[in-house]
Amino acid sequence: MRFIEKLADIQNQNHSWLCIGLDPQLDKLPAAVQPQDEPFLPFCKAIVDATADLVCAYKPNLAFFMAQGAAGMIALERVMRYVPAGIPVILDAKLGDIGSTAEQYARAAFEAFGADAVTVQPYIGGDCVRPFLAYADKGIFLLARTSNPGAGDFQDLRVDGTPLYQRVVARAREWHAAGPGTCGLVVGATYPAELEAVRALAPDQPFLIPGVGAQGGDLAAAVQHGPTAQGLGPVINASRAVLYASRGVRIPEGGADFAEAARAAALQLRDAINAQREAHT
Amino acid sequence: MRFIEKLADIQNQNHSWLCIGLDPQLDKLPAAVQPQDEPFLPFCKAIVDATADLVCAYKPNLAFFMAQGAAGMIALERVMRYVPAGIPVILDAKLGDIGSTAEQYARAAFEAFGADAVTVQPYIGGDCVRPFLAYADKGIFLLARTSNPGAGDFQDLRVDGTPLYQRVVARAREWHAAGPGTCGLVVGATYPAELEAVRALAPDQPFLIPGVGAQGGDLAAAVQHGPTAQGLGPVINASRAVLYASRGVRIPEGGADFAEAARAAALQLRDAINAQREAHT
Repeated sequence: MRFIEKLADIQNQNHSWLCIGLDPQLDKLPAAVQPQDEPFLPFCKAIVDATADLVCAYKPNLAFFMAQGAAGMIALERVMRYVPAGIPVILDAKLGDIGSTAEQYARAAFEAFGADAVTVQPYIGGDCVRPFLAYADKGIFLLARTSNPGAGDFQDLRVDGTPLYQRVVARAREWHAAGPGTCGLVVGATYPAELEAVRALAPDQPFLIPGVGAQGGDLAAAVQHGPTAQGLGPVINASRAVLYASRGVRIPEGGADFAEAARAAALQLRDAINAQREAHT
Repeated sequence: MRFIEKLADIQNQNHSWLCIGLDPQLDKLPAAVQPQDEPFLPFCKAIVDATADLVCAYKPNLAFFMAQGAAGMIALERVMRYVPAGIPVILDAKLGDIGSTAEQYARAAFEAFGADAVTVQPYIGGDCVRPFLAYADKGIFLLARTSNPGAGDFQDLRVDGTPLYQRVVARAREWHAAGPGTCGLVVGATYPAELEAVRALAPDQPFLIPGVGAQGGDLAAAVQHGPTAQGLGPVINASRAVLYASRGVRIPEGGADFAEAARAAALQLRDAINAQREAHT
């Protein structure tokens, strides 16, 4: 099954465009899992168990697992395999390397770690993107417009009057058309005008939209400009706002209710997205 | 000790600007290590043992290890710890993410895996680069001009008449000056004219130069434009040409002589670099 079909199916089944980012940090974990030998795994499993009927995807971020060395990578491998089969897993690793090495990254993401999709950097060029798109049933989300305050440093530079990120989108549209894999785009909810511009340039490509939740992005814009022309919904990601809902993001304490609190936060976000969807139909 | 001091010391001691890229691939490993449970580790250790007096750095590439899943990451951790203390290890992972996540990548590279330097992507913006430069004794090599055939797809786009990669270099110069960590640059030997242009724009920043060896880059240009104004030599990387010297890169057979063959290839490259150095003084 192609990635976009898997995504469409779960979006319908769970009536959800919400993706939960799995970004575990030792110093933010609730007290209930802190004493365990490898707390990332029970923490992430509990989050998945508590939210699997509310999401359209999970998005573990490589950085948080790799910060714990090889032990963290064992947890990543197991967390990714733990996600129920019908829910896509997007490995957020922002990968990119020259062609022969990009093949290894594609193998890492799609085969070794079993991801359905992976985030990819554009700077190196088209030959760093193609090896990922050789997997017909998999997808990538190419960084177009990121959600951070410094996103404009390079992405807004004008090339013949057009911002660089729009040049990236123009190429990504070709790559998506060429396939066979799906070439989606990362567009931050913190930049609603750019979100609209990217959708106008790339009507057919699925969006991964970070920046709602803790980063304060524009949910209405994400919902309005998120869907493709074919009606596939965006993948709207929240991480900290869900994971650390029990005690706020800066307090490591937190009882056994962390999973219930995460579920409540996920439910609220899913419903907020769905309320926006109804407002736009 | 700062990264550039460590690099300068070993360049003097080993009279070498050669870096060996540790890019192990299961189907290219010599027959002598194939039967072992985790062949990456004995293979890389044998390469390090055979060449440690000939190099100024080792550069393991994350993609090749991650392609073997968490088991490959255990090998990466151990290989990086195995390199003798005086030799810098550059983790080639082409990392980049928004600020709070970039902090996790910096922790991963410099603390969990013990790297002296790491390669970093520019596209996301300055706030994805700063967390890496917060480590005073560590370094990054920011992608400026990569060695692949498609490097020009985005890097050559004109911004007010200037190629994008030169805009990246201009910002990197500021970041290097701000410190406290070292902001070096990746410039491929396959683009000698761009190598010269980057050196003119960034006289003080160390270069990591891939693309000699199997990619056929211009060694003379790498040597001529590689050193900083202060006389720090470039880090000139070869991977396949050294690792798989025993039987050529496409033949997995190969006897116990693979380490000797790698040493001979490394010696030849180091001496070829040094011959160019003498030709340019």
